[in-house]
Amino acid sequence: MTDTLSTAGIPMRWVGPLRISGNVATTETRVPIATYESPLWPSVGRGAKVSMLAERGIAATLVDERMTRSVLVEATDAQTAFTAARTINARAEELRALVRTCSRFAELIGIRHEITANLLFIRFEFATGDASGHNMATLASDVLLKHLLRTVPGISYGSISGNYCTDKKATAINGILGRGKNVVTELLVPREVVDGVLHTSAARVVELNIRKNLLGTLLAGGIRSANAHFANMLLGFYLATGQDAANIVEGSQGVTMAEDRDGDLYFSCTLPNLIVGTVGNGKGLDFVETNLDRLGCRAEREPGQNARRLAVIAAATVLCGELSLLAAQTNPGELMRTHVRLERDHTTAKDEV
Amino acid sequence: MTDTLSTAGIPMRWVGPLRISGNVATTETRVPIATYESPLWPSVGRGAKVSMLAERGIAATLVDERMTRSVLVEATDAQTAFTAARTINARAEELRALVRTCSRFAELIGIRHEITANLLFIRFEFATGDASGHNMATLASDVLLKHLLRTVPGISYGSISGNYCTDKKATAINGILGRGKNVVTELLVPREVVDGVLHTSAARVVELNIRKNLLGTLLAGGIRSANAHFANMLLGFYLATGQDAANIVEGSQGVTMAEDRDGDLYFSCTLPNLIVGTVGNGKGLDFVETNLDRLGCRAEREPGQNARRLAVIAAATVLCGELSLLAAQTNPGELMRTHVRLERDHTTAKDEV
Amino acid sequence: MTDTLSTAGIPMRWVGPLRISGNVATTETRVPIATYESPLWPSVGRGAKVSMLAERGIAATLVDERMTRSVLVEATDAQTAFTAARTINARAEELRALVRTCSRFAELIGIRHEITANLLFIRFEFATGDASGHNMATLASDVLLKHLLRTVPGISYGSISGNYCTDKKATAINGILGRGKNVVTELLVPREVVDGVLHTSAARVVELNIRKNLLGTLLAGGIRSANAHFANMLLGFYLATGQDAANIVEGSQGVTMAEDRDGDLYFSCTLPNLIVGTVGNGKGLDFVETNLDRLGCRAEREPGQNARRLAVIAAATVLCGELSLLAAQTNPGELMRTHVRLERDHTTAKDEV
Amino acid sequence: MTDTLSTAGIPMRWVGPLRISGNVATTETRVPIATYESPLWPSVGRGAKVSMLAERGIAATLVDERMTRSVLVEATDAQTAFTAARTINARAEELRALVRTCSRFAELIGIRHEITANLLFIRFEFATGDASGHNMATLASDVLLKHLLRTVPGISYGSISGNYCTDKKATAINGILGRGKNVVTELLVPREVVDGVLHTSAARVVELNIRKNLLGTLLAGGIRSANAHFANMLLGFYLATGQDAANIVEGSQGVTMAEDRDGDLYFSCTLPNLIVGTVGNGKGLDFVETNLDRLGCRAEREPGQNARRLAVIAAATVLCGELSLLAAQTNPGELMRTHVRLERDHTTAKDEV
Repeated sequence: MTDTLSTAGIPMRWVGPLRISGNVATTETRVPIATYESPLWPSVGRGAKVSMLAERGIAATLVDERMTRSVLVEATDAQTAFTAARTINARAEELRALVRTCSRFAELIGIRHEITANLLFIRFEFATGDASGHNMATLASDVLLKHLLRTVPGISYGSISGNYCTDKKATAINGILGRGKNVVTELLVPREVVDGVLHTSAARVVELNIRKNLLGTLLAGGIRSANAHFANMLLGFYLATGQDAANIVEGSQGVTMAEDRDGDLYFSCTLPNLIVGTVGNGKGLDFVETNLDRLGCRAEREPGQNARRLAVIAAATVLCGELSLLAAQTNPGELMRTHVRLERDHTTAKDEV
Repeated sequence: MTDTLSTAGIPMRWVGPLRISGNVATTETRVPIATYESPLWPSVGRGAKVSMLAERGIAATLVDERMTRSVLVEATDAQTAFTAARTINARAEELRALVRTCSRFAELIGIRHEITANLLFIRFEFATGDASGHNMATLASDVLLKHLLRTVPGISYGSISGNYCTDKKATAINGILGRGKNVVTELLVPREVVDGVLHTSAARVVELNIRKNLLGTLLAGGIRSANAHFANMLLGFYLATGQDAANIVEGSQGVTMAEDRDGDLYFSCTLPNLIVGTVGNGKGLDFVETNLDRLGCRAEREPGQNARRLAVIAAATVLCGELSLLAAQTNPGELMRTHVRLERDHTTAKDEV
Repeated sequence: MTDTLSTAGIPMRWVGPLRISGNVATTETRVPIATYESPLWPSVGRGAKVSMLAERGIAATLVDERMTRSVLVEATDAQTAFTAARTINARAEELRALVRTCSRFAELIGIRHEITANLLFIRFEFATGDASGHNMATLASDVLLKHLLRTVPGISYGSISGNYCTDKKATAINGILGRGKNVVTELLVPREVVDGVLHTSAARVVELNIRKNLLGTLLAGGIRSANAHFANMLLGFYLATGQDAANIVEGSQGVTMAEDRDGDLYFSCTLPNLIVGTVGNGKGLDFVETNLDRLGCRAEREPGQNARRLAVIAAATVLCGELSLLAAQTNPGELMRTHVRLERDHTTAKDEV
Repeated sequence: MTDTLSTAGIPMRWVGPLRISGNVATTETRVPIATYESPLWPSVGRGAKVSMLAERGIAATLVDERMTRSVLVEATDAQTAFTAARTINARAEELRALVRTCSRFAELIGIRHEITANLLFIRFEFATGDASGHNMATLASDVLLKHLLRTVPGISYGSISGNYCTDKKATAINGILGRGKNVVTELLVPREVVDGVLHTSAARVVELNIRKNLLGTLLAGGIRSANAHFANMLLGFYLATGQDAANIVEGSQGVTMAEDRDGDLYFSCTLPNLIVGTVGNGKGLDFVETNLDRLGCRAEREPGQNARRLAVIAAATVLCGELSLLAAQTNPGELMRTHVRLERDHTTAKDEV
């Protein structure tokens, strides 16, 4: 039913270097971005340049990590669902042991549930080493679900995935309960760099962030999101590093904050749902291996450390592009002028205006 | 600041053919999907096979199309913002004329606004021919905004984009007011095909759709979304056809509905925010041109018709993958078995479980 | 099946006066608040006092008004639903005439629709004079729906209300498309009043508003809402003036904005979904009539003007309570101290701590 | 600044009896509803009648209970916020002991946090006995916050409430993490009762629930909500029993599910955010005391049991009204006919149509 295998060659460039510090990595690195949108490269590049002019660069703090899968079971009634939920909680240790038999790397670190009518959603949370963990979590959940169906009275199969996970859908649960890496990035941009490189002021970036990212997204009916274009940087970075780029859907839900600190600009991007891995699907391709290697994410390290490094580099890349675009939008006409110029330079085709 | 240009070669296959009817195109076509997730190919392929076994195939109805950009202006106070909004409405014809000077293809077809405090968000809606229209809309909005700032009293520049557009963020506004193509796809699967090809029953698909897509997403705190994995198919199709794939963020907000019609399965996917174009960024690359050509989307047609054809093919592709996954999830263990088998066959690397 | 009629006597006080200006009313008035939460009275009272110390008081701008009801019809398929939607749009004038036969006051001012699968949601928008308009809109929609079912081919009855209205549910559609009155209130508080009456500074209120109302609500997964406690003031005002207080659900979705203007505090509350009426259910009761009369909302005026006046008074009352609470929360311990003191003074029972 | 105290006398009737079973109470009781919307009484009454015709009546399962308050602190940077969060978790036992010194009834049962930029939101979860617990939770949080500010390095006061609680705002967090009582109600209506009392069929209720409550609310941009009018019943019951009725904002976020079981109707309402108490504000008023007493919620019981009983009665009341309205809306014209008739009988004034 399927054709011969070929490839879609997405234009890719390395941008930077950018400077990173924090609880995962202290490094300076260039970053690969694969995109059809050529203005993205110089945009991230400008942010990267700013990061090199700040003493600590981008401080990236990894706050949490887990991969989740929610299964769905039907119970005889709500009381039976409730009893089942309590039974499952009480048997957490047994379930943890079961997961250890599925995989060298998967570890069951949490269980949450919610009952509606006679339906019980069970959300399993796993540590998954250097893998983003979709498959590992699904496999482990499959084993757990079979076991529960056999041993907990009054429940039957509903679904291996109840959309309460949530994978590749924009929801509130991932940010509140955790899914993927939760990374906070911060950059203190000296006043003269705000002026000289970003051509704006801290006060104007702060005001724009409030009005556009916080208020504008709210009025549009956004859900747990306040940023200008996290999705663009994530897509480019994900494609270049062999990630499942459909995870930009939840990855793009994050928050940009800015403060005017006596003319210096405190700028921060929080990405609570950043899903990355250095092993797994997409990782065997030559250019992916090369890119991960060049990013220092294929080193011999404790399991999970390569993925964490990749996460903070991804998050720092997001900050660079976000900062640059917001700065541009503080100036009337700048965005359009830049786009027109850059696309003339970089692209082979564009909107026929 | 940037490196030499290379490419990220995403694995790509043609899948199908699938059968489409409706108010845009009646056709049978194979579709290209570029992805790191190899199980996606046979999954879409199974849905495509089902579409060939239904008399009309997938009925795809294009319901709306527009591209939007919201600008933000600050007014002296709310009363001034309100007066400005009414002035802008009253001068719609003048603004339409102005847009016609920006582009051969852009046409201003609507204006909406919202006031909060002294801030006025103005959402311009455009027809953009065969382009997805991001750049065209931004350019036209830039011209409109400059004009308004010069001629409407009491307002000053806020932002060229107020996040009330909304681009690449999951919000409610795009579905309610329209952005991109709004396409409804429907497929009536005969009972014997539900059984023989999908290995399930209409009743079980209906039940799963209610519990997983409608209820599960709701409980997860989703926004205007009820589907299993629209994002996966959109990403693969977007990458293969030169689209800005970051638009899967809003594109993935859509609704799957299913009905049991005497054992036959009525299955429908509605994509209210489907952003595609056949000209513009990403379109000059050889493989993209080839793919668009093979899809019949580079023909000599009235402006807009190629993009509409591409939209209904994209939407039909989404339905194929959605139907196949839901059917699989009605059966305990099937998803995992299929993934394990397919990845063994297709991929070069996977999660080290 | 029901008992004899009695009454639940909710404690009520008049608070103020507060000063209002703007495009609906220029007035100074006390306002009635019925509540079990006694600290609400002095809280609103403090805001009212601040309004009297500002030259223009609270500027209240009415930006929009409409009442809505969405009906739901099932079509043969999506194409039929689409054709029906276009037919309905084309026959708007005929539908407007039909509505005029239902009521002296109802006027059909807009029609929106959305299609999902073979389902068509039609959202009728009405002007409803001085009534909040729930019943008027339902009656008119009932007539419209019957007429459409008789005259538009391929559609059948789904529901008289499709939850796309939306009544008493927190959604995004009411703010985006309009439902009830949309009122923006603004108050410029001189620096010395911020300090002397509110015991805080503009900068601290601004910072708290960003972090608590905009960011905190966002992180909690809020929808089109950024305020501290609009619901409290609305409930108290609604009960005292005979409103259907269940409309606080959508009424509480609104936005507080604050700016530090050289030490003066610009403070604004936008209520896009404020549903009030001066005729209709609840209005025949003696205390309600007295209260409406005392508020100047039972005068001989052009239809709609009394309700508009009531709306801006309601919105101004909300601002008073919101300002006071935010100011209190800028100071560690103040909220608790105030609550403890006030409840000792005002209430007959409280949490047994 | 405030007037003399008077009362707003909301019309009140007792409706029922309704039959309840489940893990909290087995009882038959009439319920008081205070409302300006007179059709609500017979609507709930019809549902109550149905509950008496089902063997077990309404099975009400209490699944969870807690009251929450989120404080907000500012940290030096994200790393400091992260360290503080871990410190707080590690000192949970100490904090629990501290809470026990604040109140005889409050118990700290959980702590959650979220970090954005350098801001740390800490959500404390409490058991609060028979009180709804707003004040108890605020008082305890005030003490906890002061203690943390003194003993955890690098953090300073942000707010006593960070809107991450969330009180009286419609968000996702309350349902996901829990706030108030979480009650699931279920009623199996025999086919002949569906037909004879509700004048509809199970299949039609199921279909309407999917299209209106699940899909319609979703399209409107709802958040964690799928019901017709929970808010109405909650408001009436809350006012009659001395509750803080502004909590209907989050209380109205709940889910109605229906199944056709061979012609019998399985009907369920899940209320995950049901905030009620039998002591505290509003409880000293004579009619409230009488009502609570008559509901059996002032008995000598273990602390918390009276509030739990009140919660399941409230939830059962919601089910009665929800069932009756949905049944009515399955029949074209019935809603309007009923409203017109009932309001003629019951009300003293209505919309002048």
